[in-house]
Amino acid sequence: MNGINRRWVLASRPVGEPVAENFRLDSQPVPEPQAGQVLLQTLYLSIDPYMRGRMSDAKSYAPPVALGEVMVGGAVSRVIASQHPDYAVGELVMAYTGWQEYALSDGNGLFRLGDLVQPSLALGVLGMPGFTAYMGLLDIGQPQAGETVVVAAASGAVGAVVGQIAKLQGCRVIGIAGGAEKCRYVVDELGFDACIDHKAPDLATRLAEACPQGIDVYFENVGGKVFDAVLPLLNTKARVPVCGLIAHYNATSLPDGPDRLPLLAATLLKQRIRMQGFIIFDDYGHRFPEFLQQMGPWVAAGKIRFREHRISGFESAPQALIGVLRGENFGKCIVHLAD
Amino acid sequence: MNGINRRWVLASRPVGEPVAENFRLDSQPVPEPQAGQVLLQTLYLSIDPYMRGRMSDAKSYAPPVALGEVMVGGAVSRVIASQHPDYAVGELVMAYTGWQEYALSDGNGLFRLGDLVQPSLALGVLGMPGFTAYMGLLDIGQPQAGETVVVAAASGAVGAVVGQIAKLQGCRVIGIAGGAEKCRYVVDELGFDACIDHKAPDLATRLAEACPQGIDVYFENVGGKVFDAVLPLLNTKARVPVCGLIAHYNATSLPDGPDRLPLLAATLLKQRIRMQGFIIFDDYGHRFPEFLQQMGPWVAAGKIRFREHRISGFESAPQALIGVLRGENFGKCIVHLAD
Repeated sequence: MNGINRRWVLASRPVGEPVAENFRLDSQPVPEPQAGQVLLQTLYLSIDPYMRGRMSDAKSYAPPVALGEVMVGGAVSRVIASQHPDYAVGELVMAYTGWQEYALSDGNGLFRLGDLVQPSLALGVLGMPGFTAYMGLLDIGQPQAGETVVVAAASGAVGAVVGQIAKLQGCRVIGIAGGAEKCRYVVDELGFDACIDHKAPDLATRLAEACPQGIDVYFENVGGKVFDAVLPLLNTKARVPVCGLIAHYNATSLPDGPDRLPLLAATLLKQRIRMQGFIIFDDYGHRFPEFLQQMGPWVAAGKIRFREHRISGFESAPQALIGVLRGENFGKCIVHLAD
Repeated sequence: MNGINRRWVLASRPVGEPVAENFRLDSQPVPEPQAGQVLLQTLYLSIDPYMRGRMSDAKSYAPPVALGEVMVGGAVSRVIASQHPDYAVGELVMAYTGWQEYALSDGNGLFRLGDLVQPSLALGVLGMPGFTAYMGLLDIGQPQAGETVVVAAASGAVGAVVGQIAKLQGCRVIGIAGGAEKCRYVVDELGFDACIDHKAPDLATRLAEACPQGIDVYFENVGGKVFDAVLPLLNTKARVPVCGLIAHYNATSLPDGPDRLPLLAATLLKQRIRMQGFIIFDDYGHRFPEFLQQMGPWVAAGKIRFREHRISGFESAPQALIGVLRGENFGKCIVHLAD
């Protein structure tokens, strides 16, 4: 096959919020699959908050993207040439092939989508975000019927699923989202019991009013002022799965004092709270089949609803990530390259 | 029975470090047991860091001691009069009868010591501190052979037991204690692999040198600068049972900034750490028999060693607590009233 493979590579590391100049669009020849390889064409590229972390070289759970290398990310792709005995041309797959229009694979890390009715779901409710929501809530949060569950970033790819699963468990579910429109969606479409707009004044007061019995599970996606409002409401024996801290990803320094690290430790002690970070595929990869077996029917039956924030055109990927980090997306952010 | 019952009551709430004036010694007639009651004479009074929390009226896991009421605390006592069918005069018991020379009991919360060879152990290695160490380490810390376990307040009533159990599990165990004499004891007598003096300069550097493989379990008894030295060394999937924060108990305000609460949350996330507070009898009371069944033989066989810091005379109780909060005790602090 001849042609051009456009790729977004990391041009420089961001200081604070990423800017367009941190990314560079380059062009390479589309590679030729060798024996045992397939050539993939990217159809949908997933845009997720964790990508901000990979742009920095601070110590983290995964190595950073090297300067000049293709940005990381999951994608839904079509096999357009195959020298691999297990994959036929035309098949749809999901893989972490990064921000590029074409990629080679030897089959490692390829996930066959089969007859999935909407392939982009493999990047959302039936993919990493949905799996993150499922395991973080059920395995770490362990919600019991009647308990109060609070979900930050409630209209987002992970939060929306967390809240809906918590409702299926019989919990009272309070979302926190940015803006009246997202809050309406979270209550009216997703069925949360209430949703607090973190852009409105008095977040802490309004969250306390929405949680008269305190908080038993807080699914942490955000940090910042949202966590500050949650902390005094946490009940004895509360569980806090820590999935993300988007409010801090662009921070270049710690906030001003006083130093509340001892306050958090003392709250964990006095309230006997379990707070636990997790990285979904590292901690739970072996349970992905179990997740699909449960989530597939829930989605098919309309018990778990979802919303995609689609952006057209590969050239939009950097702006899409910048927008996600600002909370400008409304639903799971996906860049659509081809059908 | 006639006579005087001396009691230490809470005279005022401390601001910062407790002072002698926060306590008042009063005298009451020794009470008479009614039908179904026993009269207890206190032999040994336990002095523990948690008592500082009960002196304040800040929100905590247990209600504070009311002004004018007897200070809380566990004690080993002898039944000296009985109108209770299950208890005979002369029996030794452990109960939370507080800081007083005599107390009535209807049998609730009384724990019969039987033929325990050294009754004061029921306040230490075979009582609340030992139970705290056992459950916090094994149930929350879940140490695996070959892992590195760091124990704060390593010569204290809880820390000494934590480290010795961790050694029995095949772990590499590093203690942190205040002063060269305590550190020598922790290594030479208790068998820890190393012990860092937190009063010496360069705590962080020396702890890092003692933990070349990082830290898998940190048993938190202290907080403050000890936790600051531990935090950057915590490994992926580390566990942090939070048992106490003695460095903060006398604090009247939070430390100066920057605000490191987001740093702690980010570390939990990136390193996938589980940090969990616990209160021993609330969370694990039902497992006390299991603890005794395991710990009794360990102590009898000399596998778990212990040291008591004995103070004579009931009138010394306030100074004993003030000393414990300063780290002046060397071993489990016990006030000895009578034989």
